[in-house]
Amino acid sequence: MQLSKIYEPIQQDLAKVEDMMKSVSKADFSWLPKQLAHDLKDSGKLAELLTHSLKGGGKRIRPALTLLSGKFYDYNLDYLLPMATAVEILHTATLVHDDAIDKSPARRGRPTINKVWDDDKAILLGDYLFAKAGELAATTQNLRVTKLLAQTLMTITSGELAQSFSAFNLEQTRQHYLQRISSKTASLFSLATESGAILSQAPGKSAKVLKEYGYNLGIAFQIVDDIMDFIGTEEEMGKPVGSDLAQGTLTLPAMLLLEHYPEDNPVKELFQNRDRQKNIKLAIELVRSSSIVQECYTVASDYCAKACRNLNLLPDNASRQSLINLADYVVARKR
Amino acid sequence: MQLSKIYEPIQQDLAKVEDMMKSVSKADFSWLPKQLAHDLKDSGKLAELLTHSLKGGGKRIRPALTLLSGKFYDYNLDYLLPMATAVEILHTATLVHDDAIDKSPARRGRPTINKVWDDDKAILLGDYLFAKAGELAATTQNLRVTKLLAQTLMTITSGELAQSFSAFNLEQTRQHYLQRISSKTASLFSLATESGAILSQAPGKSAKVLKEYGYNLGIAFQIVDDIMDFIGTEEEMGKPVGSDLAQGTLTLPAMLLLEHYPEDNPVKELFQNRDRQKNIKLAIELVRSSSIVQECYTVASDYCAKACRNLNLLPDNASRQSLINLADYVVARKR
Repeated sequence: MQLSKIYEPIQQDLAKVEDMMKSVSKADFSWLPKQLAHDLKDSGKLAELLTHSLKGGGKRIRPALTLLSGKFYDYNLDYLLPMATAVEILHTATLVHDDAIDKSPARRGRPTINKVWDDDKAILLGDYLFAKAGELAATTQNLRVTKLLAQTLMTITSGELAQSFSAFNLEQTRQHYLQRISSKTASLFSLATESGAILSQAPGKSAKVLKEYGYNLGIAFQIVDDIMDFIGTEEEMGKPVGSDLAQGTLTLPAMLLLEHYPEDNPVKELFQNRDRQKNIKLAIELVRSSSIVQECYTVASDYCAKACRNLNLLPDNASRQSLINLADYVVARKR
Repeated sequence: MQLSKIYEPIQQDLAKVEDMMKSVSKADFSWLPKQLAHDLKDSGKLAELLTHSLKGGGKRIRPALTLLSGKFYDYNLDYLLPMATAVEILHTATLVHDDAIDKSPARRGRPTINKVWDDDKAILLGDYLFAKAGELAATTQNLRVTKLLAQTLMTITSGELAQSFSAFNLEQTRQHYLQRISSKTASLFSLATESGAILSQAPGKSAKVLKEYGYNLGIAFQIVDDIMDFIGTEEEMGKPVGSDLAQGTLTLPAMLLLEHYPEDNPVKELFQNRDRQKNIKLAIELVRSSSIVQECYTVASDYCAKACRNLNLLPDNASRQSLINLADYVVARKR
């Protein structure tokens, strides 16, 4: 099923989130004296950087999750919309910093901030976006979701730190992998759904169901992302194939490759810094021609099933059906 | 007057802020399942990075400002202490990122995060600290200060962006300089004092007095910092002399040097990338042997006087006297 079809119950709201992103791009400093606000925006080329980083192209899954999760009980769009926007801005900020860290030249088929400008601008723009996400969260008038957003960023960066410290380390188990992706990806998906639940006064039990849906969907989403880094095309992904291996990040397909071929393994060779290009190519070919892709998809599908198993405890409405369809989409998607 | 004497009315509270910083260093993830929290902290070496960055050595002026500003009306330490800690953590986060951007090897006489580890770790640690500051601010149960903290970070990073885009640009006026330092430094000082006022239910007029005190003190503080970059010793500052010029940042002393010697100026030469080391040394010597240092101190003193001019509208207590003494200290300090 196409995303646009899945997003049908929240189509208008998502358009409003898009409008909010556009107004974020304008970089207003409403709390500052007018002249200073104008000078700051102007001299820092802030609006230009913001427009570049927030321009469409993403799937907007995270804000969609907040909106869908917020549609089961008593919701107020004045709060739900800024939270959905905050979640997407937080996500964008982490991408801007990740790209600087990974020296990535492209994302979603467009040059990254660090490529067009430099790492310094990427660091500062990411910081601005983190702050903007915090400000938007505070707009909900709800301290719980505001705190949750801050805690989620702590979880995400800790996961990224773990990934950074374990780069090119072959001594990693699946447990380490799951820990990393649960903190760097699932935590944000779970923030998206839980905040929607909280802001719509969902009863505790329903909020838990939605939180766990987000968490498990996030794990599945990241596994599929990691599969695509092996089987996708540069055109589909908007970035080079095999980026994870090039960064020394051991994902599930690479782990299974190490299990299947314990001797003479290109990942081992690569991580020991031998013939990088050749070994990346070899690893990709081996993964593509083996049962590993299917094994990984099975793991991802299991998490999607886990995500959906308690959704029947929620009121039956169009959003619930969309959450179920979204779980299917996450495994079936090509980008 | 010594800082310890000025801090006397808040001595015990500041010790508690120090304790809070230590507990931040332990990196607890109270909101995560126990095993994941343990793994995350462990595999990311997070506690080690936090301890390194939060270890004493700073003057703790910003949390002192929050505490002093919070002592005029009806305050609750359960809220004032986390806010004071949040302000210092936010400051630390900006330093960690600044050092990565400037490739600085040392700060306060100790190696920087980017020097001991690398830029990637500095980016991620800074992100974690920003989030921690946001979480602590939310602990005050006050949405206004939580939002103010987020907005302050937006102002700071915009000022840093302006500085980054104007590096090695000779076409800058004093107006540009004041705009930059008001956003990158004064905004945080003003957050420190205003949040203390808000959290202690200060009446609007008093809150405004304290906010403006912080703002003007921050401007003075940064001007003195910029003077010290010319006249200090590496030992006093804990970092190399002339760093601003080396980064292409035009501060007040350098601007006055350009005004005093419009022809054949070492700053001009340096910014046109000729004989960097020689010209930095020459610029430092010229500033030191001229009236520029005194002129800059006069500007700083004027801002300190401006900071204090309305303090008499506040209740007369030990904190008020400390704010007055702190303004003297900011100009007289040697580090």
